[in-house]
Amino acid sequence: MDHYVVDTLISPEGRLEILSKAEVARLLDNSQGGLYTVFRNCSLAVLNCGNAMDDGKELLERYKSFDISIIQRERGIKLDIKGAPSNAFVDGKMIKGIHEHLFAVLRDVIFVNDEIMDNPTFDLLSTEGITDAVFHILRNAEVLRPMTTPNMVVCWGGHSISREEYDYTKKVGYELGLRSLDICTGCGPGAMKGPMKGAAIAHSKQRIGNGRYLGLTEPGIIAAESPNPIVNDLVILPDIEKRLEAFVRTGHGIVVFPGGAGTAEEILYILGILLHPENEVQPFPLIFTGPESAREYFAQIDQFIGLTLGPDAQRRYKIIIDDPVLVAQEMQNGIKLVREFRKSRSDAYYFNWSLRIDPEFQKPFMPTHANMRNLHLHKNQETHLLAANLRRAFSGVVAGNVKDQGIRAIEEYGVFEIHGDTSIMEPMDALLASFVTQHRMKLPGKQYNPCYRIVK
Amino acid sequence: MDHYVVDTLISPEGRLEILSKAEVARLLDNSQGGLYTVFRNCSLAVLNCGNAMDDGKELLERYKSFDISIIQRERGIKLDIKGAPSNAFVDGKMIKGIHEHLFAVLRDVIFVNDEIMDNPTFDLLSTEGITDAVFHILRNAEVLRPMTTPNMVVCWGGHSISREEYDYTKKVGYELGLRSLDICTGCGPGAMKGPMKGAAIAHSKQRIGNGRYLGLTEPGIIAAESPNPIVNDLVILPDIEKRLEAFVRTGHGIVVFPGGAGTAEEILYILGILLHPENEVQPFPLIFTGPESAREYFAQIDQFIGLTLGPDAQRRYKIIIDDPVLVAQEMQNGIKLVREFRKSRSDAYYFNWSLRIDPEFQKPFMPTHANMRNLHLHKNQETHLLAANLRRAFSGVVAGNVKDQGIRAIEEYGVFEIHGDTSIMEPMDALLASFVTQHRMKLPGKQYNPCYRIVK
Amino acid sequence: MDHYVVDTLISPEGRLEILSKAEVARLLDNSQGGLYTVFRNCSLAVLNCGNAMDDGKELLERYKSFDISIIQRERGIKLDIKGAPSNAFVDGKMIKGIHEHLFAVLRDVIFVNDEIMDNPTFDLLSTEGITDAVFHILRNAEVLRPMTTPNMVVCWGGHSISREEYDYTKKVGYELGLRSLDICTGCGPGAMKGPMKGAAIAHSKQRIGNGRYLGLTEPGIIAAESPNPIVNDLVILPDIEKRLEAFVRTGHGIVVFPGGAGTAEEILYILGILLHPENEVQPFPLIFTGPESAREYFAQIDQFIGLTLGPDAQRRYKIIIDDPVLVAQEMQNGIKLVREFRKSRSDAYYFNWSLRIDPEFQKPFMPTHANMRNLHLHKNQETHLLAANLRRAFSGVVAGNVKDQGIRAIEEYGVFEIHGDTSIMEPMDALLASFVTQHRMKLPGKQYNPCYRIVK
Amino acid sequence: MDHYVVDTLISPEGRLEILSKAEVARLLDNSQGGLYTVFRNCSLAVLNCGNAMDDGKELLERYKSFDISIIQRERGIKLDIKGAPSNAFVDGKMIKGIHEHLFAVLRDVIFVNDEIMDNPTFDLLSTEGITDAVFHILRNAEVLRPMTTPNMVVCWGGHSISREEYDYTKKVGYELGLRSLDICTGCGPGAMKGPMKGAAIAHSKQRIGNGRYLGLTEPGIIAAESPNPIVNDLVILPDIEKRLEAFVRTGHGIVVFPGGAGTAEEILYILGILLHPENEVQPFPLIFTGPESAREYFAQIDQFIGLTLGPDAQRRYKIIIDDPVLVAQEMQNGIKLVREFRKSRSDAYYFNWSLRIDPEFQKPFMPTHANMRNLHLHKNQETHLLAANLRRAFSGVVAGNVKDQGIRAIEEYGVFEIHGDTSIMEPMDALLASFVTQHRMKLPGKQYNPCYRIVK
Repeated sequence: MDHYVVDTLISPEGRLEILSKAEVARLLDNSQGGLYTVFRNCSLAVLNCGNAMDDGKELLERYKSFDISIIQRERGIKLDIKGAPSNAFVDGKMIKGIHEHLFAVLRDVIFVNDEIMDNPTFDLLSTEGITDAVFHILRNAEVLRPMTTPNMVVCWGGHSISREEYDYTKKVGYELGLRSLDICTGCGPGAMKGPMKGAAIAHSKQRIGNGRYLGLTEPGIIAAESPNPIVNDLVILPDIEKRLEAFVRTGHGIVVFPGGAGTAEEILYILGILLHPENEVQPFPLIFTGPESAREYFAQIDQFIGLTLGPDAQRRYKIIIDDPVLVAQEMQNGIKLVREFRKSRSDAYYFNWSLRIDPEFQKPFMPTHANMRNLHLHKNQETHLLAANLRRAFSGVVAGNVKDQGIRAIEEYGVFEIHGDTSIMEPMDALLASFVTQHRMKLPGKQYNPCYRIVK
Repeated sequence: MDHYVVDTLISPEGRLEILSKAEVARLLDNSQGGLYTVFRNCSLAVLNCGNAMDDGKELLERYKSFDISIIQRERGIKLDIKGAPSNAFVDGKMIKGIHEHLFAVLRDVIFVNDEIMDNPTFDLLSTEGITDAVFHILRNAEVLRPMTTPNMVVCWGGHSISREEYDYTKKVGYELGLRSLDICTGCGPGAMKGPMKGAAIAHSKQRIGNGRYLGLTEPGIIAAESPNPIVNDLVILPDIEKRLEAFVRTGHGIVVFPGGAGTAEEILYILGILLHPENEVQPFPLIFTGPESAREYFAQIDQFIGLTLGPDAQRRYKIIIDDPVLVAQEMQNGIKLVREFRKSRSDAYYFNWSLRIDPEFQKPFMPTHANMRNLHLHKNQETHLLAANLRRAFSGVVAGNVKDQGIRAIEEYGVFEIHGDTSIMEPMDALLASFVTQHRMKLPGKQYNPCYRIVK
Repeated sequence: MDHYVVDTLISPEGRLEILSKAEVARLLDNSQGGLYTVFRNCSLAVLNCGNAMDDGKELLERYKSFDISIIQRERGIKLDIKGAPSNAFVDGKMIKGIHEHLFAVLRDVIFVNDEIMDNPTFDLLSTEGITDAVFHILRNAEVLRPMTTPNMVVCWGGHSISREEYDYTKKVGYELGLRSLDICTGCGPGAMKGPMKGAAIAHSKQRIGNGRYLGLTEPGIIAAESPNPIVNDLVILPDIEKRLEAFVRTGHGIVVFPGGAGTAEEILYILGILLHPENEVQPFPLIFTGPESAREYFAQIDQFIGLTLGPDAQRRYKIIIDDPVLVAQEMQNGIKLVREFRKSRSDAYYFNWSLRIDPEFQKPFMPTHANMRNLHLHKNQETHLLAANLRRAFSGVVAGNVKDQGIRAIEEYGVFEIHGDTSIMEPMDALLASFVTQHRMKLPGKQYNPCYRIVK
Repeated sequence: MDHYVVDTLISPEGRLEILSKAEVARLLDNSQGGLYTVFRNCSLAVLNCGNAMDDGKELLERYKSFDISIIQRERGIKLDIKGAPSNAFVDGKMIKGIHEHLFAVLRDVIFVNDEIMDNPTFDLLSTEGITDAVFHILRNAEVLRPMTTPNMVVCWGGHSISREEYDYTKKVGYELGLRSLDICTGCGPGAMKGPMKGAAIAHSKQRIGNGRYLGLTEPGIIAAESPNPIVNDLVILPDIEKRLEAFVRTGHGIVVFPGGAGTAEEILYILGILLHPENEVQPFPLIFTGPESAREYFAQIDQFIGLTLGPDAQRRYKIIIDDPVLVAQEMQNGIKLVREFRKSRSDAYYFNWSLRIDPEFQKPFMPTHANMRNLHLHKNQETHLLAANLRRAFSGVVAGNVKDQGIRAIEEYGVFEIHGDTSIMEPMDALLASFVTQHRMKLPGKQYNPCYRIVK
C-alpha cells in the first residue's frame, strides 16, 4: 500500500512564533537530549490527522522519511517539511488548522524544555511544583483566559466507537454549544471529535465566533490520536499525568461517553481525585452518557465502580441515557454551582487551584513490565489510593494497545501481568473483556490481541 | 397537537438597526398598503426554523396569535414578540442566528418599500431598472463586498431529499469549504442546509472566521422554507424573479443537487439565461451532482432538457455522480475562469452586471389559473423563451405545492391546467410524475396531492 | 505664485463604496442637473486641506484644471484625479484621512440626490420631512450609533483665531477626551481643529481606539473650511440649515469658542431653538469658553444677547474663562442630565427627536441682496423668531465673506444692506465691528473688506 | 507643599495578566531578594507621570506611604493601590495608558526574575547570553512582531529641553508618522514625548490604528523619566546596558535631538558599536537634528566626537538643522537600505541579530566612585573601546544627576572624579559645562550642582 506524501514550506499565521537563535539550534539538535526527535514525532502525528490509524509505532514506521526543519527568514521563521502525509493537504495546500497545530507543537516543545524542565523555579518532585508547571504550560499556550465565565466542558470517551455513539456525541456537543459552552477533549477521533463538530455548528448558529475547542494531548498518545483540525487550542503536555491534571483544572465539568481502557483510566482518575476528603465540598459536574445502545455499557462501568471504589464514588456522577438536551442542561446547572463556589472563595475561574490532587495521581507512571506486575491492587488502602493504582493499570493497557513504546515493549517481552485481590481482578477482567468484545480497544478492522493478562 | 409558543423582547445585536419615527410607523401600519402583514409573516417564518413544515398556509394558521411590534428605546429599537414558535429558542433564549434574521427581515421590508417601490429613481418596468433594484437591495443588505475575489457557490436542490442525498450535500459543502469557497442557497432545509453545514465545519478547520452562508429568499416562499440559522447573510427579495436574478448575479458558479419542481424551475431559469446569444461568452460553472442513488434522477433531468431545450443547453452543465472532491475542484477551476473573464473586462467581481437577462425572466409571474393555462409551451419560439415559459410552469407548481396563496387558490379553484406541444408535455409529465414518486414535492410523511394536470 | 498639483488614482479603503452603473453615470453627468459639479467642487475642497485659504471662489479659480472621475474595476470603483492640490499628499501619496473624505463626499452627494431629493418619501416642505431627511443622511453616513451612551460634544468657534485661543481649544479638547467624550465640529481649521487634536492625544492616552471626530459641513462652506484629516466621520449635508440641525440633534452638548460671524450665527441658532417654549424642559449643556484674553470677547457676546434676546436666553449658557478642566467637568455633568432625560422618555441617545425646531430655522435661507434687505429684525415678534432672523443676517455675512456664491454676489451688486430696529442694529453693528478689529472675519494676512452695511 | 494621593483598585484590561500563586507570593515578598521593592518603585514611577520631576530620590521620599499589592479574584488578579500620585487620575479614575503601564511593570519584573535571572538557560556572562536575554524580555513583552516591515525609529534626546526644541521634536514625529513610521524612545518627557505626540496626530490622519509608541526604560531611570501615557508598549529592561541594546536591536534607525549627559551617553553607545569593524557593512541611519537654535549645540557635539573618536565616527551620522521633512525622508530612505540588507541575508526585521556588540558595551557598569575614578579614558586603545569608556563616564554623570542611588552616593561621598588624557578631558569638560549652561542637566527651575569633577 502506497502512502502519498507532500513536501512544503510554511510560515506561522494567526499565531505567530518568533524564535531565538538558541531555540532554533535546540530544536534542530538530534543528539541525545536534543529536542529534534520529540518535535519531529509530534509534528508527524499532527500531520497524520484524518488517517484512520491508532498505532503509534506503525505511524513512525510508515513515514520514515518524514523530516521537518526550521528556517530563519527576515519576517520570521518558516518550517521546511519533507514527506508529510498527504491527508493534511487540500489540493497541495496544508489545512490551516493543522498548520496551526504544528506551531503549537513547536511552542510547547520549546517551552516545556527551556522554561519548565531546565528551570529550577519549578520543583517537579513536589505537588505544588507539578501543578505550577501545568499552570505555566497552559498559560504559555494562552489557554487560560481571565475575564471569562466558566464554560469549559471536558468530553471523554473512546476513539473507537460505533456510528450511533458517534452521532450521539455530536448531538450532545450541539446542545452544549447552543448553550454557549465550550469543548475540551483529548483531541483524537471518535468521542473526542464528535462533540466539537456538534458544538461548532451550534456556535455558528449562535454567532459565537470565539468558540473554543481545546485539545490536550501528550507526546506518547498524540501519534495514536491525531488532533482533529477543529481543535483551535492545542496543548502538548509532557506526560499523561500532567495532561489529566490539565483536564481537571481547566474543565468546569466532565461528560464521559462510552470508550475503552483510556476512558476507564480517565474515570478512575477523576473519581480518585473527587474521593479525596479535601475535595468533598468541590462541586464538579460529572455525567456518563450515551445513546440507548450504551445503556448496558454504563451499567457495567457503574457496577465495576461499585465493586471496587464503592457507593461514595457512585454518588459523584450521574448516568443519563439518550437525552442530549438533559445532559446539556444538567451540565449548565452544574457549572453554575462551580461558578458560585469559586466566586465565593475568590478562586480563579480559569484554573482550579483548590482541587486537591494526591501526588499518587501526579507522579509519572512508566508502564514497564515490572511496574505493571507490582501494582498494588488491594482493598487494604484508602479508596482514592486504590483508584490511583487502578488508574495506572488501565494506563498500562492503553500504552500496550496504542503507544509506540508500549507496543514495542509487548513485542519484546510479552503481555503485561496484572495481579491483585480477586474481588478487584474479577470485575476488572470482565470489564476489559467486554471492551474487547465491543471493539473499544482498537479501531475496527483490526484483530485485537490483548496486551495484558489478569492474574487472579 | 399543541405548539408551544414563547413571548420575548429582543434588541438588535451584531447588526444594529436604527429606525426613523416614520419607518416605525409604516412597519406598524396594518392598513391596506401598510407593511405590517409582510413584516409579521416573514418574521413568523424566520422564527419557525427547525420545524419540519413546508406549507405556508399551515404555518400562518397554526400561529394565529403571533404578533411582533417595534418599541423605541434610548439605545435603539427593540422587538416585542408574542406567541413565537418555541423551536427558535434554547431554554427560553432566542438563537442568535434567528435573532439576526428577524432584523434582516425588518431591514429588507423597509428598504424594498421605501427606497425601491416608492422611489421613482427605479423604473421597475425596464430591465435596467429591475437589475438596479436587485443591486440596491443586495447592497443595502451589505452582501456585495468589494476587494474580495470570486468565491460564492450557489447550491440549489430540493428541500425534501433522502438522508443519503442530504449527507452527500454536506460532503460537497465540506469540500467546497476546504477550498475557501462560500455558499449561497435558498436557505431552507435539505439541499439548502447541508452544504452550509459541511462548509461550516470545513471553514472551521481552515480557520476561515468570515465564511459566508448567504440565504436568498422572498416573502412567498420563506414560510415554506424557513432560513436555517447558519445563514449569516439573509436577504428577502420582493419576488421569486428578483430572487433568481440575485442568485445568478452574485453567485460565481452553481451546483444543483436533486430536488423537485423548485429545482427544475431554477435549472430552467439558469439555462434559459445562458442560452441567450449575448451570454455565449460568459463562463458560468454549472454542475449537477448527487450520490450514486441520484444517477437515474439526473439522467431523467438531462433527457428532459435534451428533449425540450436541446443539446446547446446540455453543453452548459456537467453531471458528476458521487464525487464531492471532483465537484469542488471543477467548481474552483470554473470560478478561476469567471475571475479572469471579469478581470479582463473590469467587470465587478461582486455583481455580474454583464450577464444578459431577458425581460421574460425578470417580469414577475403570477401563477393564477388563467396565467398557468395560457402559458406558451410550444417549440415555435426561441429556445431561451421556451425556457422562460417552462420556468413559469414549474414556478406555478411550486406555488400550488407550498406557498400560502397558491395553496388557497388550488383549494378554491382546483388544480392548474398546463397545455402545450405534446413533445414538451410528455417529458414534463414524466418528470413531474417521477418527482411525486420520489417524494420530492413535499416533505415525507404527507400524502402528496398534485396541484396540476398536464393537458396533452 | 505656483501651486503644485498631483495626479493620482485611488481605491476606497476602510470604508468601501460600491456603485451601480446608474449612480456612476449620474456622478459623471455635468449637464445642468447632473451631479458632477457639486461632486467635483466638494472633492477639491477636501483635497485643499492644510492650505490656509478661506475663500471658496479663490479655491475654484486656482485649481481650474482639477478633474475627478470614477472608474469601474473588478474589485470596485476607483477615483481618477487630475490636478489635485499637493498638500493632500505626503511624498506623492494621498493622506488616508483625506482619501476617506473623498469617498464620504461621493457617498453623500449620491445619497442626498437619489434617496432624499428625488424620493417622494421625504416631504421637504414639512418640518417632519426635513428632520427625517437629516436623520437619513446621518444614518446613511453611519454616524448614528445605537448601543452607545451620550458623549458627543459639539465645538463651535472661529476658523480664524489667535495662537493663544487655538492652544486653548486644544486644551479643552484634551480634557474632554480624557473623559471619554467625542468631538463634533464644522471640520475646518482653528476652533474646529484644535479640540480634535487635543482629544486625539487624550484618547490615545486613554486607549480609546474608536474615538470619534465628527465633521459636519455643506457644499457652500466646505471650500472655505476644508475638513482636517483627523475628522474620521465626515458628512456633507445639503445646506447650512440641515447642517445646523445635524449639530443640535446629534450633539449632546455644545462648547462655543471665540469666533466671528459664523460663530454668532451658530449661537443665535441654538439659543433660538432653546427659547422655543416646547424646549424649556430639554437639558442642553451650552458653554462659552476661551482663554483669559477672550474674557472681553464673551462679555460682548453676552451683552449682545442680553440686549436682543434678553435674560431668558442668557440663562441658557455658562461662560467659563480659562479653565479647561472645569469646562470638561461641566460638560460631562450636563451630558449626564441629557442621558437621564432621554432615558426617562425612551428617547434615542443618538438623535434628539424631541427637540422642537421651528420651521423658521429649517427653511433654507438664500442670502440674496433682496432677502438680506428684507430680514425682519424687529422686536415686535416672539424672541425665538427674532433669533431666527438674526441668525439669517449673520449667515448672509458669512456667505459674503467666504462662500463662492456670496463673494460673487457682493462683487456684482455691492454690499448687503441690513435694516432693523435701532435697539438691535446698534449692538449688531458694534459686534460685527469688533469681529473685524479682532481679525475674526477672515484668516490673517488679508485686508478685510466688509460685505455688509448696517442701516440703522 | 501637599501632594494629593489616591487609593484605587484596578483590574488588567486590554493586556491581561494571569499569575500563579507562586508568582504572586514572590511579588509580595519584601524580604531581601524578594521582588516587592522593585515592583513598588517602578509602579510609583509609572503613576508619577505628568509631574515635572526628574529626581528619583525625591520621588521615593515624597510618596513614602505609597503601597501596591496583588489580590487574586475569580476572574483574574487585581492591584490594590494606596497613596498614588493624583496626576495619574482624571476625576478619580486612572488614565488607561498608565493602567496598562502598571501591568507592563508587573509582567517584566516577574519575567526578568523568574525566567531570565534564575534560569540557567541564559548565561548572562557571555555576549550571546546577554543578547538572548534582551531578546526574550522583548519577546515576552510582545514587542517583536514578525510579518511587519522595518519602520521603528528610535528618538533620543533630553528630558529637559526648550519649548522651541520640544515643538521641533513634535514636528519631526509628525513627519515620521505621516510616513507610517513608528516611534521608540526612553519614554520620559521632552524629546522622548514630543515625537510620540507628533506621530500620534499623524497616525490619526493616516488612519494608522496600530501605530506603535514603544518605550524602553529600566528600574534605575524610570523614577526620573516617568513613561508618558502615549507609550503603548512599555518594557522595563533590567539595566541601562540591556536597555541600550534593546534600542539598537529593535530600532531601524535613530534620530538624536538635543539633550544632556544621557543623550551623550546614547550617542557614544551607538557610535562605539558602529565603529566595531564587524559592523562596517551594517546600514544604520543616524541623524542628529534640532531647530535653528540647536545648530551651535550639534556643532559642539560634532566637534567633541571629532576630537575623541575621529572622522570615522563622524561619517556615521548626518546633522540636519531645522528641516523635519528632510529628517523623515532621510530616515525613510535609510530604513529602506536596512530592509534590503536584512532581506538579502534573511536576517529578522524585528531584531537585529547581526549587529555585533562588544561585551564592553554589554557588561553592566556600576557608577561607584571607585569605578568612575578608574575609567580608562586614554587614546591608547581601539576607538570603539574608548567610546565604551566615555559612555560609562556619561552614564555615571546621569546617575549622579537623577537616579536615586547615584544621588545618594554623591550626597554621601561627594562628586565623582573623572581622570584621563587631557586631549579627551578638555573637550569633555567643555561639553559638560555647556550642558550645564544650557540647562540640559536637570529640569529648569532648579539650581544644578554638578555631580562630577574633571581631573585633567
